[in-house]
Amino acid sequence: MEPVYFDHNATTPLDERVREAMLPYLGQEFGNASSRHALGTRARKAVDRAREQVAEAVGAQPSQVVFVSGGSEANNLFIKGAAAFLKASQIVVSAIEHPCVAKPAQELARQGWSLHRIAVDESGRVDFGDYETALARPTGIVSVMLANNETGVVQDVARIAARGRAAGAWVHTDAVQALGKMQVDFRELNVHALTVSAHKVYGPKGAAALVLDKRVSVKSLISGGGHEGGLRAGTENVPAIVGMGVACELARARWREDAQRLAELRDRLERGLAALGAAIFGRGAPRLPNTSYFAFEGIEGETLVIELDRRGFCVASGSACSSLKTGPSDVLLAMGVAPELARGAVRVSLGRANTPAQVDAFLEALKAVVARLKRMTAMAV
Amino acid sequence: MEPVYFDHNATTPLDERVREAMLPYLGQEFGNASSRHALGTRARKAVDRAREQVAEAVGAQPSQVVFVSGGSEANNLFIKGAAAFLKASQIVVSAIEHPCVAKPAQELARQGWSLHRIAVDESGRVDFGDYETALARPTGIVSVMLANNETGVVQDVARIAARGRAAGAWVHTDAVQALGKMQVDFRELNVHALTVSAHKVYGPKGAAALVLDKRVSVKSLISGGGHEGGLRAGTENVPAIVGMGVACELARARWREDAQRLAELRDRLERGLAALGAAIFGRGAPRLPNTSYFAFEGIEGETLVIELDRRGFCVASGSACSSLKTGPSDVLLAMGVAPELARGAVRVSLGRANTPAQVDAFLEALKAVVARLKRMTAMAV
Repeated sequence: MEPVYFDHNATTPLDERVREAMLPYLGQEFGNASSRHALGTRARKAVDRAREQVAEAVGAQPSQVVFVSGGSEANNLFIKGAAAFLKASQIVVSAIEHPCVAKPAQELARQGWSLHRIAVDESGRVDFGDYETALARPTGIVSVMLANNETGVVQDVARIAARGRAAGAWVHTDAVQALGKMQVDFRELNVHALTVSAHKVYGPKGAAALVLDKRVSVKSLISGGGHEGGLRAGTENVPAIVGMGVACELARARWREDAQRLAELRDRLERGLAALGAAIFGRGAPRLPNTSYFAFEGIEGETLVIELDRRGFCVASGSACSSLKTGPSDVLLAMGVAPELARGAVRVSLGRANTPAQVDAFLEALKAVVARLKRMTAMAV
Repeated sequence: MEPVYFDHNATTPLDERVREAMLPYLGQEFGNASSRHALGTRARKAVDRAREQVAEAVGAQPSQVVFVSGGSEANNLFIKGAAAFLKASQIVVSAIEHPCVAKPAQELARQGWSLHRIAVDESGRVDFGDYETALARPTGIVSVMLANNETGVVQDVARIAARGRAAGAWVHTDAVQALGKMQVDFRELNVHALTVSAHKVYGPKGAAALVLDKRVSVKSLISGGGHEGGLRAGTENVPAIVGMGVACELARARWREDAQRLAELRDRLERGLAALGAAIFGRGAPRLPNTSYFAFEGIEGETLVIELDRRGFCVASGSACSSLKTGPSDVLLAMGVAPELARGAVRVSLGRANTPAQVDAFLEALKAVVARLKRMTAMAV
């Protein structure tokens, strides 16, 4: 029996239409988009079409879309690339950024920049008082994620951007988790740069975009051929880019409907979790409709993930990207969650194909696992 | 009618076995290789298997294989990443490197490094006298390609590496064009680092590897999650990596047989080219078996490519990666070719599916095109 997949914030299956759109480019349409002959020209047209689809999905112009290999690359490209054009000053990021924003920011801090990590409140929202304090100092770069990968908590990025712009900073948002689950509009968010990734929206791994206001200069990470307007050298990953285009078009067409269905499923799940005595993180804040992050006192999240996996449910104990690191989630610690409780964190991230019956079966399984683990803990004491 | 594809140095079609191996990972096996549940574990195993296949194909250990998104990224990762660990000294590259080596080297030259470009002789081979002169100065990094993308000319990288090591440098070779067409053995070449790419060997776009002696330290370009031993953050492109593994296994199994067949086809082609009066570049040097780079006096390469495309033949006027740049090939100028003749350059790069009949048809078409263009030129004069 195939497992029930509840880990859509880690990655999503390909939508069938995405897959169908990609297949020709894994077959006869294999040309290099930079080649001048017939096969190359057809590949170039496919990339151009995808660029339009991505732009439309996020309310930007096609010329603002820079294709890269993934969200981590896009975030690194903006932070390191912008820093290369700016005089060293302050970089301001939230305390709950993904490692692919947090680490580049730390690198700048070793290269003459000062780093301010904006505190978040207990619901996981940016503390605007702390942000204002930071902006009192000369600030070159601000990067705050639109929605958190672990908690799903959504930030008021338009307000963050307005304040950052007023302070003279270049403002970026990592919208990787937000796309397809809420409105993501480059103009309304009013940022200078925004990251989206295909494989979080039922598109392929290997394609993402940095959407970039061209009045901002960034230095390429990968230099060489003049691909992507000189911002990203390397043969275009045509099949993945084509897939990203279709995935973005689908996300744009159906996110509202998806969001409503997912919120209902999530609420059904959380009613059950509350009945089992779980603590649910970020519940007081605006959140993505698909994400539920919770813990049971005295039960390790890692153990729960393994036990649930045995029973056929794919969930996460944090983000997949930090699964190599041990210890409690930095996001939860920043929210002031006690380390013992944070160590119990489990994330369910729902997706298009999930059903109420799967949620009910999961709650049943969880109930049994929690009861068993509690008995074992009691015996051990 | 499908065009005849003679541009395999730009990119290759997927081998059917590669495609078959990839398809499950574009379907049910969509897990994030960093997830701890069943789907994640299966993706991780697939990545591990591919790492073994790539290592075997190049005579390295799996732990030495760092997966990245493409050859340009791998070359940038080594040059910029090694420079970040070294005291600024001299970087030595050949005068005919691909832009994704030449440009990072130029960037170092703007950051306190000195850059030496090793001259090549008229056949396109590195001038060892010039190389020795360069090595008399303290040298941190040497990067010389194994086979040139335009001419196919092969360098004696083992000798270059021995001299570079003796001088205390870290030595890298871009083997992207060599793999699958000649022996590529990390240990025999005795380099510290080597780049290979999937889409040049009938594998997918979106996967490549930097093969790295772990006694050499490189700083990641993309930081974030601890993927690839901390050297390359970002969700692994599992389908592309799986495809790369199979493509490398096939390359290893059949390169000798392929090379012999391709050399015969290439020789057939070049007999025809010589009869038509073409100048063939690099002919006096050891070359890849599949590549023929030539020109006709007084005829623009661009024009030839367009005319041949109309007649159903995909060829290139240089490398796809520099197709946005105008003017004669830097590689040919470095070889001392007169700019007028260099502007006429056309590259045919043969592949597994090409046949003698296609070569003959190409020569027929070329003869007609050249005759027509010469008539037009004559009338214009």
